[in-house]
Amino acid sequence: MFQVTFRFESGEKVTTYAQEGENLLETARKANVAIDAPCSGNASCGKCKVRLISGMLDSQKTRHIFEEEYEQGWRLACVSKINGDVEVVVPDIASAYRSRMKVADLSSKEEIAIFEKAKSDIEQAGIVLKNSLRTVDVCMNVPTLDDTMPDNERFTRALKKELGLKSVRVPYSALRKMSHVFRESDFKVKAVIRVAGDDAFVYDIYPQTENVVIGGLAIDIGTTTVSALLINMLTGEVIGKASAGNGQIRYGADVINRIIESVKPGGSERLQKAIIEETINPMVQQMCRATGFDPRHIYRMSVASNTTMNHLLTGMNGDPIRMEPYIPTFYKTNSLYASDLGITVNPDAHIIMAPNIGSYVGGDITAGTLVSMIWNRPEFSLFIDLGTNGELVFGNEDFLMSCACSAGPAFEGGDISCGMRATDGAIEACTIDAETMEPSFHVIGKEGTKPIGLCGSGIIDVIGELYRTKIINPKGKFIRNGKRVRHDKYGMGSYVLAFAEDAGSVKDVEINEVDIDNFIRAKGAIFSAIRTMLSSVDFDISMIEDVYVAGGIGSGINMGNAVRIGMFPDIPLDKFHYIGNSSLSGSYAMLLSTAAEKKCYEIAKNMTYLELSAVPTYMDEFVASCFIPHTDAALFPSVELTGQNPE
Amino acid sequence: MFQVTFRFESGEKVTTYAQEGENLLETARKANVAIDAPCSGNASCGKCKVRLISGMLDSQKTRHIFEEEYEQGWRLACVSKINGDVEVVVPDIASAYRSRMKVADLSSKEEIAIFEKAKSDIEQAGIVLKNSLRTVDVCMNVPTLDDTMPDNERFTRALKKELGLKSVRVPYSALRKMSHVFRESDFKVKAVIRVAGDDAFVYDIYPQTENVVIGGLAIDIGTTTVSALLINMLTGEVIGKASAGNGQIRYGADVINRIIESVKPGGSERLQKAIIEETINPMVQQMCRATGFDPRHIYRMSVASNTTMNHLLTGMNGDPIRMEPYIPTFYKTNSLYASDLGITVNPDAHIIMAPNIGSYVGGDITAGTLVSMIWNRPEFSLFIDLGTNGELVFGNEDFLMSCACSAGPAFEGGDISCGMRATDGAIEACTIDAETMEPSFHVIGKEGTKPIGLCGSGIIDVIGELYRTKIINPKGKFIRNGKRVRHDKYGMGSYVLAFAEDAGSVKDVEINEVDIDNFIRAKGAIFSAIRTMLSSVDFDISMIEDVYVAGGIGSGINMGNAVRIGMFPDIPLDKFHYIGNSSLSGSYAMLLSTAAEKKCYEIAKNMTYLELSAVPTYMDEFVASCFIPHTDAALFPSVELTGQNPE
Repeated sequence: MFQVTFRFESGEKVTTYAQEGENLLETARKANVAIDAPCSGNASCGKCKVRLISGMLDSQKTRHIFEEEYEQGWRLACVSKINGDVEVVVPDIASAYRSRMKVADLSSKEEIAIFEKAKSDIEQAGIVLKNSLRTVDVCMNVPTLDDTMPDNERFTRALKKELGLKSVRVPYSALRKMSHVFRESDFKVKAVIRVAGDDAFVYDIYPQTENVVIGGLAIDIGTTTVSALLINMLTGEVIGKASAGNGQIRYGADVINRIIESVKPGGSERLQKAIIEETINPMVQQMCRATGFDPRHIYRMSVASNTTMNHLLTGMNGDPIRMEPYIPTFYKTNSLYASDLGITVNPDAHIIMAPNIGSYVGGDITAGTLVSMIWNRPEFSLFIDLGTNGELVFGNEDFLMSCACSAGPAFEGGDISCGMRATDGAIEACTIDAETMEPSFHVIGKEGTKPIGLCGSGIIDVIGELYRTKIINPKGKFIRNGKRVRHDKYGMGSYVLAFAEDAGSVKDVEINEVDIDNFIRAKGAIFSAIRTMLSSVDFDISMIEDVYVAGGIGSGINMGNAVRIGMFPDIPLDKFHYIGNSSLSGSYAMLLSTAAEKKCYEIAKNMTYLELSAVPTYMDEFVASCFIPHTDAALFPSVELTGQNPE
Repeated sequence: MFQVTFRFESGEKVTTYAQEGENLLETARKANVAIDAPCSGNASCGKCKVRLISGMLDSQKTRHIFEEEYEQGWRLACVSKINGDVEVVVPDIASAYRSRMKVADLSSKEEIAIFEKAKSDIEQAGIVLKNSLRTVDVCMNVPTLDDTMPDNERFTRALKKELGLKSVRVPYSALRKMSHVFRESDFKVKAVIRVAGDDAFVYDIYPQTENVVIGGLAIDIGTTTVSALLINMLTGEVIGKASAGNGQIRYGADVINRIIESVKPGGSERLQKAIIEETINPMVQQMCRATGFDPRHIYRMSVASNTTMNHLLTGMNGDPIRMEPYIPTFYKTNSLYASDLGITVNPDAHIIMAPNIGSYVGGDITAGTLVSMIWNRPEFSLFIDLGTNGELVFGNEDFLMSCACSAGPAFEGGDISCGMRATDGAIEACTIDAETMEPSFHVIGKEGTKPIGLCGSGIIDVIGELYRTKIINPKGKFIRNGKRVRHDKYGMGSYVLAFAEDAGSVKDVEINEVDIDNFIRAKGAIFSAIRTMLSSVDFDISMIEDVYVAGGIGSGINMGNAVRIGMFPDIPLDKFHYIGNSSLSGSYAMLLSTAAEKKCYEIAKNMTYLELSAVPTYMDEFVASCFIPHTDAALFPSVELTGQNPE
């Protein structure tokens, strides 16, 4: 056995042991060391870079490691075998999801604006903002030798009388507290209950003097990022907010790789542990610690997530999702509790889930549709959720249809050589001077943070600007020369946004033709999906009244550039509305309001699903869209053409 | 730290470590070594004897250890301090409860006779032998690209259609199995469900080809002994039967000592662990192993036990039970599951409990009353349960009243110098020749087993015979002399049943005047309770039509001797019916039949409770009963008086 040490830039380290010949990425996974491996370890994405600082590794050389990087010790963990004691540094980009857990500062109004809006939108649609949880004061007589009724019967009788109930269910957790709480409070207690009809379920019992806030937990589980809200179930007030990388990332960047990992022996448990024990539970703890809230006072949870994420959360077999005929285990669940999954809130907390409507359109979309409010308007609107993939919903108060397109991870920086998630060091917005070809950009992070790579909105801007300034042609090939434009020995062109000396990493921050090509295919997938879905119901783009764009990825998005590159339809820019993380705000609405929860089930039930791959014209639409802005320039009348016609 | 080794006669040993000066009994408890300590370690019962075989112990000498025993190494664990490495033997009597776990041989009709009888009695009373559990075949279409409904919705829809249901709840455990079971069985499955009205709850799903027996577990938790039945919930067939000592015994022989132990720090968890992890779970495992039954196929459980036992089982605070005004936490529970308590059956198995009717009359008595059938007859009957204590129910189809008397543990051999439980080596029946004063007795165990002590029925026989043969007077004092009758230096008389050389232990098996006195007080408590309860409703003994005697202790009971010593009323012997462990057969009836379960709640609700200590005449009745057979000989007309009148 050899000793393997993983060192983080934070200073933390993890030491483990491995057999000779063992794969370094596998070793890291076993030791719960998070190394980014979007491709699940098949050497194709180049993200699992680590830097060797002592000892030896038997590593293959790949196109992802430059010669100078190799000399500096950079290796891909997935193609490295252990053959001695070794110590490596796991860089921050790779361990991003660990460092990204953060509790939001709610003094900033921006943080909670979308929830306030969701609440008021839902209420204006006539949906009551009420759920079945409440507290009730129960005063009982103190027992005497002449009144020897037991605690449970005494309490149940008093509660029935107080609220005119027929039946009261007292679960084990509440029963166990009775004896002490009753005697401590002189039989004057407060109970947290759920009332349905004339039946009550008792979650908890406290002395009446205690100030009890009924907490609720709304979660959005994205393939990449997980967000959570702690709320007051009576008022809807947001008490805490946190986000973190999805701990499953080290098992693959996309849903397909996660499923493949999950069906390996013990895989389902590993992935469940990664999302629950390593992501959700620490988020709950941090959020509760920051706000002084007792996690056991969280009595209900809602989850919005794509079909694969909610299946992996619940440890369901994911294989049927990805294999023909693509069958999930559930659209809805009706009997799932925190104790089933080991989520560290009140064990009796019911978990409600935004319903899936298919293997590729899940609860994140139904929840998002709920708060997009497109189901409540006579106008035809388009809802676009840009996450690790792209999903679309089109319709109005009379009908709703949805589809999913394999846009891939490009919007989150995947499949892009300098791509990264929207964290510190990412270029999120950019303009390029048409004359000098010099870029100006904004980097996420503190003032003066040096650029490391490009996040989705940055890529849109860069490609849009390269096209506007005629540095690239409509096919994404470089057609101007200059200091920042270069071609390698194979003739592949690239544009340097920041040279190594100005960058936050050891190499230039640049975008190349392969990256542009990957991104064009991603934006083509979105646009062709829009066209195909609309045609399937005899609509065309001009009939879209409003476009609601959601997704963490979209926060810095420049709609003009997104239209310019042909990703979004060419309609007036004031028709585009960025609505933030609609999956989380939908999850929040469902948690707070039983009527909103029901509305979401109704939306899901009435939403049709279009399987794009089954539409014969989709492939042609897609190919036609793989062009800037499109092979049919007439579709983008407002985009100033650069004068180069498609070949 | 010193090394402490406990050696069992079985050859097993347990090694642990202790600080200098640590108490040996406490050390044993920490190491989960079962040493019998009915008095909870205050040196009063003398049961925690161990034999020192190497090393040293700092032990007090007590009246419980004879000089020769002390020389042989015998010590009381509760008064021994550790002051060096030490090794002791824990004798079989002490570790009785470990060795007593046994799975019954059901080929013997006797083993299941009482359950057959309970079943037929209940049925004859017009109670339907049906519960809400059943299996159902569900055949679904195999999904295709044109029929992509998820597993859960596919199943739920098919089940609703099959049974005409409105709603179907699928808990986590069943949801998790769907994907695999459906695909393994080509979507032809069998489900174990509970149906209530038009709502179904799904416990389990199997391939249709699998032969599924719905198992149920009926338990009787006695203070001393725990018994369990594994049954087929559809037919009522008894599949397995097991019994074991209650693992809590090492924390005290009676309910009061157990409660005292339970309110010490961590005590509640220790006592819960002793009954669940060390008693019930091993019994379930052994029973299932012996019968090839999968414990996860046990979908419902019923428990009958006294109020303290069901409170300690569920980890409730026991203190209010023993302190004025004597308030239990519950009479009934309505939402308790196997997963709450960690019982190793199906985690969703509902636990039903025979209801308590007070702190001192619990579910063992209500369940026993159910199967005694006294609630179904116009005649007035008396139901007596002789366990570690005595409880009585009197009444008929119009009324039922109950009381509990502090008879103490004498019926199970407690408080008797040679007393023991009804296990191997116990004298369970005895006659004495009036001339020679020589005894003939029957010893429990294989042919030739030597006597070690006396169990309850043996004590009744011995005292009855000593009285009949005028060896003792009505006050229990020895008045004849002979080889077997002797007096010690303080003048205390005793009768030797077996001299050391013929006994299975190192000393004579004998009964002395203190023992007889203790037993007379126990039998006096029972008889005076009967008289007091009857007088309270203006009845007298002659109005008792039938007496049903229950309890493990009573199995070998000679009713004639029990009447002769004045324990039971002097009515014709054919009016006495021994009905075995009625708590277990009641638990069985409640498990099998929902209507019987309801009947038991109804019985409990209508049963009044008489607190004997609150009846002014009770103490006089008790004192008058502490005599053989009674100070008022007229109450026992059929008992041949020995010519000695009460002083």
